Amino acid sequence: MELVSIRDMYRNKEKYIDTTLEIGGWVRSIRASKNFGFIVVNDGTFFEPLQVVYHDEMDNFAEVSKLNVGAAIIVKGKLVATPDAKQPFEIQAEEVYIEGPSSSDYPLQKKRHSFEYLRTIAHLRPRTNTFQAVFRVRSLIAYAIHKFFQERDFVYVHTPIITGSDAEGAGEMFRVTTLDMDNLPKNEDGTVNYEEDFFNKETSLTVSGQLNGETYAMAFKNIYTFGPTFRAENSNTTRHAAEFWMIEPEIAFADLKDDMILAESMIKYIIRYVMENAPEEMAFFNQFVDKGLIERLTSVANSDFGHVTYTEAIEILEKHNDKFDYKVSWGCDLQTEHERYLTEQIFKCPVFVTDYPKDIKAFYMKMNEDNKTVAAMDCLVPGIGEIIGGSQREDDYDKLVKRMEEMGLNAEDYDFYLDLRKYGSTRHAGFGLGFERCVMYLTGMSNIRDVIPFPRTVNNCEL
Amino acid sequence: MELVSIRDMYRNKEKYIDTTLEIGGWVRSIRASKNFGFIVVNDGTFFEPLQVVYHDEMDNFAEVSKLNVGAAIIVKGKLVATPDAKQPFEIQAEEVYIEGPSSSDYPLQKKRHSFEYLRTIAHLRPRTNTFQAVFRVRSLIAYAIHKFFQERDFVYVHTPIITGSDAEGAGEMFRVTTLDMDNLPKNEDGTVNYEEDFFNKETSLTVSGQLNGETYAMAFKNIYTFGPTFRAENSNTTRHAAEFWMIEPEIAFADLKDDMILAESMIKYIIRYVMENAPEEMAFFNQFVDKGLIERLTSVANSDFGHVTYTEAIEILEKHNDKFDYKVSWGCDLQTEHERYLTEQIFKCPVFVTDYPKDIKAFYMKMNEDNKTVAAMDCLVPGIGEIIGGSQREDDYDKLVKRMEEMGLNAEDYDFYLDLRKYGSTRHAGFGLGFERCVMYLTGMSNIRDVIPFPRTVNNCEL
Repeated sequence: MELVSIRDMYRNKEKYIDTTLEIGGWVRSIRASKNFGFIVVNDGTFFEPLQVVYHDEMDNFAEVSKLNVGAAIIVKGKLVATPDAKQPFEIQAEEVYIEGPSSSDYPLQKKRHSFEYLRTIAHLRPRTNTFQAVFRVRSLIAYAIHKFFQERDFVYVHTPIITGSDAEGAGEMFRVTTLDMDNLPKNEDGTVNYEEDFFNKETSLTVSGQLNGETYAMAFKNIYTFGPTFRAENSNTTRHAAEFWMIEPEIAFADLKDDMILAESMIKYIIRYVMENAPEEMAFFNQFVDKGLIERLTSVANSDFGHVTYTEAIEILEKHNDKFDYKVSWGCDLQTEHERYLTEQIFKCPVFVTDYPKDIKAFYMKMNEDNKTVAAMDCLVPGIGEIIGGSQREDDYDKLVKRMEEMGLNAEDYDFYLDLRKYGSTRHAGFGLGFERCVMYLTGMSNIRDVIPFPRTVNNCEL
Repeated sequence: MELVSIRDMYRNKEKYIDTTLEIGGWVRSIRASKNFGFIVVNDGTFFEPLQVVYHDEMDNFAEVSKLNVGAAIIVKGKLVATPDAKQPFEIQAEEVYIEGPSSSDYPLQKKRHSFEYLRTIAHLRPRTNTFQAVFRVRSLIAYAIHKFFQERDFVYVHTPIITGSDAEGAGEMFRVTTLDMDNLPKNEDGTVNYEEDFFNKETSLTVSGQLNGETYAMAFKNIYTFGPTFRAENSNTTRHAAEFWMIEPEIAFADLKDDMILAESMIKYIIRYVMENAPEEMAFFNQFVDKGLIERLTSVANSDFGHVTYTEAIEILEKHNDKFDYKVSWGCDLQTEHERYLTEQIFKCPVFVTDYPKDIKAFYMKMNEDNKTVAAMDCLVPGIGEIIGGSQREDDYDKLVKRMEEMGLNAEDYDFYLDLRKYGSTRHAGFGLGFERCVMYLTGMSNIRDVIPFPRTVNNCEL
């Protein structure tokens, strides 16, 4: 008999009530008395579990009653409505087949475990309510993002993970090598000879797919990337991981305004998709992880995002400098405390801050006419701060070369990138969405380690 | 005025014929005479280009006539039907605005370039017909795969890229490190001290997400991964890259038969999705890259896949040993020549080969009752050979430990993996689909370098 999923049962109740069926899943809790017992089973397909009632008419009644939490079972029985109970139905078991028992040292007994402890058993924590919810929602968000872009005919581009360049100079990089570390080939001057390395030169893990992405936007008009990126930064915070996923759309024949419209539409789309497709999980987060989450997200999905220039934002923030650890003044980078103050206290909704001073932004951003600021935008959201950073790109060959020189970059390293300004250059813009920040934002989870299946952070690369 | 995409124009002709509109795109070719001219424009949204007719009534007629191939332009004009021409319509331009010119050294002049040459300009090749088609189809295949699994409520899991284990021992790995190569920290015995490395130990790039994926299948029942994997193998072939993407579904309460049903459904789904959503691109491949492609794919989508055990396959192949460079006999691994002979000559359709000798397969595969073979399956397709490799996993704790010992693996390194057999073990199975092989299969392209935007192979890590 084909196993029926608990999701299917909940979503298509009428089809299954009063029929005999089979389910397979894992014991969440078990309570046995002399002649009968209750088993709560979760089969991983649905957030809500299923109650199984079994009786001593079964041959293996005693054996089943001794099952530990975590055991895998297959249950055959009749699904009956339970109008007076909390759950809508239960299975009255005819047979309980033990697929795999669980030993009594199973770490996930029926009690509340701290997130810290659960991080030490990353291979088992998806079996708990919280992490079932987190990782199903993570999966749905990823799909919502693909769906959003594909419905708009964006081309998904796999930009490379191993790179010979340091892209935007965006931070510390991980080296990738096959050299024998205990016997490194050397040049005459004693330095390492990377010509003997796998790629014949020094290589690292990517920090951004943007520059490669731009080359495809100049061919396909609208593209997006969705892949892992890396930072070898020694920062042990709740918001930084060494390995994380990024989404980087890039749109041609488009400017900063188009870029912001795209970002706002995308965020709203994701919120609506997840609320619609994971109502049980979202209700759980709202109740146990972040009270007010659903109200906040609903409001974001239905309101227009704010807009403010960096210069205006500084003027506003300067009036509240007494509230900040770092005092703001024109020219400084915004810290999370400033970002959150703007979006939570001033605007009370997501807000785009635009036109940042050129000196705190990357070389590729389009210079504004004031020659002091660039066409950059950060999208700030309540509870998180910056969730998206983007810009219109400098599409003028000469201006770009000049900016690279000012910033000490070697133009020869960027030949391919400059070619885009030589052969049919056009206005274009894009942004980066940190995927994990997005998952945190939608679930209310406050530590990035708890939204990545197997997180990689300084000194931590387990499993 | 909002730009209309050429895709939209082709797909919703009625809406646009006889209206005045604006398009933005790049010049594919230009032909000017004294009073008028023709420009073929591609805007990257659609495989077919659009013809623009312009006249000397325009102020910048002379300037436009001097445009080089590759220039970016915006055209305003009326879309008119051209019932007597090859193309269904053309734009009669009122204005042609030059967004960005192209210099005369533009490498993609209107002539046929070899794939070898185009590989040297990876940032420009997506602007050619062939690579527009390849990379749009690549994007569609990726989406079809997500869609297939999400429609079936599989959870998408991001398994880690940086890993501290060597997973299935599947091959040479790339080291990931932040140690100062010119000044490596050493232990007292002179070996490198990896405790000073970023993760406090030796780390590499993943070769497979399977073992991590299994932990999630034992929580969510049905999961899939879709991410980059790496092999530091010094093999310079048309089918191997150092960096490629893999899809690895894993299903619990399921055996090898379920696994094959899943694989077959997935392949058929992908084919149908691409044929439906990229008919122009597929027609192009069929005509210029691989004659017979569409017929072959249509037949695969509509026929049942074959099934043969390894033992039977060897019996069949042995009769044709005169045709092979490597002669087969029971116990040997199948080479591409054998795989292709089976699927192309014997079965004339995709075929699953099952139950391979344990000695040529990985430690985690479920032992069959004969104690000689394991519950493995490879899916072979015409033109490629193996496209999918999968197996039912050993779910018995003691058998798994025994097998690991036989193969010289250290059980302690696999504690988390063994836990899955201790706490609610159940039948489960999965497979790996090499994404690039799948793209090659669907496009008829014969070199893996031509289906990856920026390929990484031995001695090659450009852009």
